[in-house]
Amino acid sequence: MDRMTVGVIGFGTVGAGVVKILLNNSKILEERAGMPVVLKKIADLDTTSDRGIRIPEGMLTADAEEILRDPEIRTVVEVIGGENPAKRFIEAALSAGKNVVTSNKEVIAKHGLHFAGLAEANGCSILYEAAVGGGIPILHAVRNSLSANKIEKVFGIVNGTTNYILTKMTGSGADFATALKEAQDLGYAEADPKNDVEGYDVAYKLAILAGLAFRCHVNYQDVFREGITKITPEDIAAAKRFNYSIKMAAIGMDRGGKLELRVHPVMIRNSHPLASVNDAFNAIYIRGDSVGDVMFYGQGAGEMPTASAVVGDIMNLAFRKAQGFAADSRYNLHPLAVMPIDECVTSFFIRYTVSDEPGVLATVSAVFAKHKVSIYSIQQGDADGGQAAITAITHPVEEKHMRDALAEMQTLACVKEICSVIRVGLGE
Amino acid sequence: MDRMTVGVIGFGTVGAGVVKILLNNSKILEERAGMPVVLKKIADLDTTSDRGIRIPEGMLTADAEEILRDPEIRTVVEVIGGENPAKRFIEAALSAGKNVVTSNKEVIAKHGLHFAGLAEANGCSILYEAAVGGGIPILHAVRNSLSANKIEKVFGIVNGTTNYILTKMTGSGADFATALKEAQDLGYAEADPKNDVEGYDVAYKLAILAGLAFRCHVNYQDVFREGITKITPEDIAAAKRFNYSIKMAAIGMDRGGKLELRVHPVMIRNSHPLASVNDAFNAIYIRGDSVGDVMFYGQGAGEMPTASAVVGDIMNLAFRKAQGFAADSRYNLHPLAVMPIDECVTSFFIRYTVSDEPGVLATVSAVFAKHKVSIYSIQQGDADGGQAAITAITHPVEEKHMRDALAEMQTLACVKEICSVIRVGLGE
Repeated sequence: MDRMTVGVIGFGTVGAGVVKILLNNSKILEERAGMPVVLKKIADLDTTSDRGIRIPEGMLTADAEEILRDPEIRTVVEVIGGENPAKRFIEAALSAGKNVVTSNKEVIAKHGLHFAGLAEANGCSILYEAAVGGGIPILHAVRNSLSANKIEKVFGIVNGTTNYILTKMTGSGADFATALKEAQDLGYAEADPKNDVEGYDVAYKLAILAGLAFRCHVNYQDVFREGITKITPEDIAAAKRFNYSIKMAAIGMDRGGKLELRVHPVMIRNSHPLASVNDAFNAIYIRGDSVGDVMFYGQGAGEMPTASAVVGDIMNLAFRKAQGFAADSRYNLHPLAVMPIDECVTSFFIRYTVSDEPGVLATVSAVFAKHKVSIYSIQQGDADGGQAAITAITHPVEEKHMRDALAEMQTLACVKEICSVIRVGLGE
Repeated sequence: MDRMTVGVIGFGTVGAGVVKILLNNSKILEERAGMPVVLKKIADLDTTSDRGIRIPEGMLTADAEEILRDPEIRTVVEVIGGENPAKRFIEAALSAGKNVVTSNKEVIAKHGLHFAGLAEANGCSILYEAAVGGGIPILHAVRNSLSANKIEKVFGIVNGTTNYILTKMTGSGADFATALKEAQDLGYAEADPKNDVEGYDVAYKLAILAGLAFRCHVNYQDVFREGITKITPEDIAAAKRFNYSIKMAAIGMDRGGKLELRVHPVMIRNSHPLASVNDAFNAIYIRGDSVGDVMFYGQGAGEMPTASAVVGDIMNLAFRKAQGFAADSRYNLHPLAVMPIDECVTSFFIRYTVSDEPGVLATVSAVFAKHKVSIYSIQQGDADGGQAAITAITHPVEEKHMRDALAEMQTLACVKEICSVIRVGLGE
């Protein structure tokens, strides 16, 4: 009888979830896969901590090589996270003709193309559904169910940490540092939060998703990236006055042979469904030429949702075991250049202070007009200490014009400070 | 070189969409499938109408047998809809070892198990992603990506026609007949709307989805079904006062070895995401033991979204061509009984009129209490002509108790009319 023998490298949060499903649900997995799905080995440097699951004697080792060298283990789950040593383990597994399933967005964003080549050369597969959207089956849908479509756009909220922080800032009026601290206390944010709050995690995910959606190789470093650390309670309050919410967005668009790829906070109209995606939830839209907009919503992180996606990939390998398919080899990669952010067109929210004297609005407006920046809506706050706070939303404009306008504004004596510049909307 | 040769039976709305994708996107389909995906023949009794796509000379025939007898055509797309003659065509195709892709919920709900057996016996497959949720890739996700989960619950809005009608009634205050007429004028509802407004279409879809989710065979006739024809503008207005919306719901739950399957209008709190799913859109929640709640949203009908799902299935067959997998054969079917609606537990909204005299509320309340019906919220309208209108929402209660309470209420002299009884919420 055929069987699927699995080794898991990494016994942290996600690893523990994977082990729980493989051990506790083994009967239903066997029934559905049509063969036993057998966990043989787990490797982690920490062989003593309690992960809330009882594992058979001898299953846990500190030496990943035991998994990589075991000829019976044909599928290796890598759930350590981070670039190294994950990269080395994945390379070793693929080179030995073993299938790899990973939840590791960083290593896939950085080395996915290299891994796909290794998999193809060795007749095995690498799958990474859990790397984008946690438990939400977005990558498989893009690869398979939506494959009749030319995908035109992908966008959404793909980072639970930043969404949690922004949700808290919106709900309580807390500042960024306070909301971050709360997220850290609850385990939603790392001690070193840079990967999330500076947008690296979102950029990795967008690079992976856009690569599959637009059938091209995306270098994650080409993704424009801006974090949420500068968002203030004043910005959130101003957004509310305009009936908007601030969210951390990933936006990818096929601009007729060029890709627009950007990761940054955006102001979204409250009537848009993404504005209601709160806390650690993720939601991703895919726009196809036939299907129109399809949206997927669920828990984008966490032990069991992420493990659900990892084991889903294992099951997909089991379903196709006889065939030895290489997940990425069937796609021709298109050479698509990424547009410089300068050329991207978007609306902007600007918050700035001016001296409270006649003619100031006209002076600033003239600078906007000179640089083709046209104002959609403007609000002037009460003057305070000789200064007035202005909030404005522009019509869509090329980023370079906006930047030139802002640079010239800063030379004006009447402009005291440009406090915030936040993009508005999710792309046309 | 390997190739995928396709015949399409039915050249109506969906058929035209399928033909458009196969002819216009043939280059990207070939690139993704790794083989040419070739449309060879289309069969429809109407061989003259313009479907908005130019097809090669000789491709369209009035005789479906030309497709069924063609040994080169290995994949037959059935997009006629309805039970007959679709059933006969599907049987003939599967018996000849041809794969079948269909968008036909009725024929799958009624004969899916029979077809799966035929497919298995003849080494071919039948796929029907488009039968539930139109372009939304829900069935494939349940079968594949979510297969690590024990699915506990499926629920959502899966009929665009009834959702359109209820959206219009909510927006404009129109009555059912007026909103139906508008839906018919716009092509959202059939001239004979019974299939949609009486809930048959939703029951077919729930039977299919629940069968896959709970790995069992569901007889669609076991699904409790109630249509939307009795919903009045007064009900919609009362729902608004309680901050609810009325939607047509499909609800399926695994109640520990018994299934709860019901299709009926429900009142949903406006804070629930499903309350904002409007017009012809669909949204479906899947609750898995690991993944939690995942929601899928998109266009549940229409030419191109439905065609996207049909061609997605063709692509899935192409991806697996070498393997000849039988889509359903890998699942063991569990023998799960469907709970009688009497045993289902839900809250109820009740609207009734009483004589405007002291003690009436106490009399009615005593009847509720006697039958274990406990009131969550109650509103009494202004008296008018000696009568007062009462609207109440109950706590969850077994349906049989509610029915007994209503029966006894009708014997009370002080109760003039029970105008409406609508279930509340989406199951616990």
